[in-house]
Amino acid sequence: MRGRSGRRRGAPDTKGEILAAARAVFGERGYDGASVRAIAAAAGVDPALVHHYFGTKEKLFLAAMEIPWDPALIADAIADDSTGVGVGERAIRTFLSVWEQPAGRGPILALLRSAMQHETAALLLRQFVTRAILGRALVAFQGVPDGALRAEAMVSHLIGLAIVRYVVKLEPLASVSDEELVRLVAPVLQRYHDGPFEPGE
Amino acid sequence: MRGRSGRRRGAPDTKGEILAAARAVFGERGYDGASVRAIAAAAGVDPALVHHYFGTKEKLFLAAMEIPWDPALIADAIADDSTGVGVGERAIRTFLSVWEQPAGRGPILALLRSAMQHETAALLLRQFVTRAILGRALVAFQGVPDGALRAEAMVSHLIGLAIVRYVVKLEPLASVSDEELVRLVAPVLQRYHDGPFEPGE
Repeated sequence: MRGRSGRRRGAPDTKGEILAAARAVFGERGYDGASVRAIAAAAGVDPALVHHYFGTKEKLFLAAMEIPWDPALIADAIADDSTGVGVGERAIRTFLSVWEQPAGRGPILALLRSAMQHETAALLLRQFVTRAILGRALVAFQGVPDGALRAEAMVSHLIGLAIVRYVVKLEPLASVSDEELVRLVAPVLQRYHDGPFEPGE
Repeated sequence: MRGRSGRRRGAPDTKGEILAAARAVFGERGYDGASVRAIAAAAGVDPALVHHYFGTKEKLFLAAMEIPWDPALIADAIADDSTGVGVGERAIRTFLSVWEQPAGRGPILALLRSAMQHETAALLLRQFVTRAILGRALVAFQGVPDGALRAEAMVSHLIGLAIVRYVVKLEPLASVSDEELVRLVAPVLQRYHDGPFEPGE
């Protein structure tokens, strides 16, 4: 179907071949180790064609993994403190906007499943989360001592929440409304931003 | 090896057959739906022999899944408020006592992996966590409104922490010491016990 679109250039399945090559190279080398050049070589095309079709490495990764949301927008929504709403509430609301949509949930669950099965997939997820989400969202923790550690603890809570609410489906947590979840979780996440923490002795 | 032990009665592989039958029946029917009677029937032995070898259904489940820790002790350690330490710190310390041991980590990770792949395994994990851990640990939330919801939110954070620290290995979270993790996470978990929460409008 896609190959028949008049808007696209190149052979009908060139894009599909690039995406397959991207999945293979990301899977073997991780996010940081994979380059557009290596993916182009694996697909037997010019790197310029990959850039033409997909833009950046990040966008190529999102297309290859069929992730329908933009991590930059996710991270910006968490980082944006101009709304008068704390980072805890921004994080849980952004989380719900992705996970309450089955189309948004599927690909990230697939990534998480792979990461739990294979060391290389765990590396891929770690690097992707670090580069594409944490790196940007950390703006919200600027000036907070141990900001990266606090932000990762917050992310870890959200990952666990996803598993318990959408996969394991523990009740009553699986059935509370979005607004109830925000009221329950936001102040706890906010504690990671605002609360005291003495890292070492 | 086990079959050669002089301490055990019955044919050398009867225990192994009961464990295999237990895995199959738990996998098909979930934790609540599986009975010692059904497992005995699947193994072709008398239910009394299953009780003789393994005791309760919970103990049979732990043996079948090769879980080396006792959920009753885990739950009691979280529930025991005679120590002068808050439930948040008790929960994170108990968590670390299981997850910092590779032998303790392996089986629960295997359960979690299965739960993320198969609906029936998710049911099994949900029922096991509910019956064997949450049901007992909820003592710590007695008298707290919405105690079950608060306790599950706490559990969800611990599950996510396990994935980020031991599977995805996000740094710096993967490398902080146990004591640093306690100082970071305990007050946040405690907030689920003590903090205000208005569930509905």
